[in-house]
Amino acid sequence: MITGLDHIAIAVPDFDKAIKRFMEDFGLEFEGAEDVEAAQTSTAFFPLPPTSIELVHPLEGRGPIAKYLEKKGGGLHHICFRSDDIEADVARLKEKGYQFLSETPNPGAHDCLTIFIHPKCCDGVLIELNQPPADH
Amino acid sequence: MITGLDHIAIAVPDFDKAIKRFMEDFGLEFEGAEDVEAAQTSTAFFPLPPTSIELVHPLEGRGPIAKYLEKKGGGLHHICFRSDDIEADVARLKEKGYQFLSETPNPGAHDCLTIFIHPKCCDGVLIELNQPPADH
Repeated sequence: MITGLDHIAIAVPDFDKAIKRFMEDFGLEFEGAEDVEAAQTSTAFFPLPPTSIELVHPLEGRGPIAKYLEKKGGGLHHICFRSDDIEADVARLKEKGYQFLSETPNPGAHDCLTIFIHPKCCDGVLIELNQPPADH
Repeated sequence: MITGLDHIAIAVPDFDKAIKRFMEDFGLEFEGAEDVEAAQTSTAFFPLPPTSIELVHPLEGRGPIAKYLEKKGGGLHHICFRSDDIEADVARLKEKGYQFLSETPNPGAHDCLTIFIHPKCCDGVLIELNQPPADH
């Protein structure tokens, strides 16, 4: 079941400048940055409990965020719903015809299991589902 | 001061189909729809407290959402930060060089005062600030 909005992700061309903007101009708390090697992405989190803003930036200039920035310069990249049983939610959505960007959920930031729904199934919106680790 | 993420808005080409998707496929609670004449926009809210998903669709086929849909087909349209003093936040951000889409905040959905920051100031992301009515 989907239990909440885990985060919204914003793709930014200048990681440090964007972190500074959300800290200093918007006054949000900066939780820290984390590189997600599997996704070739650097992430920076600003908690707005129980959700958060996640800045995403290409790790070493490569990967899907680099491609997104080349095309669009920056912007709202995806939203992520928190699931309490990601395997069950994926199975349920697959039955309804939803397509996913990977066969099964994979480890992502914050040790969550994570999977993306193909944006063509949701009016062009990239939607992630994640499930926090059991001890979270 | 910015106190939280009020909502994220998704522009959808088929209002009823999208409402059905978020209710039936994602299992979110549907709070109801509201037409915002001043913004030429129909809105539908799915609360995920203390934030919510807001679907936006052109009211009578006109206005800024119609233009967005013509260009992009659908997608993540904007995010909205909740402010406890919108006049002070606007003044502070103007001093830092931020530009806004209107001179002053205007009435929006849910009787909030609302103003949009120009997306060119935020890496292409349209950011709204709103302040709920005093008795909210």
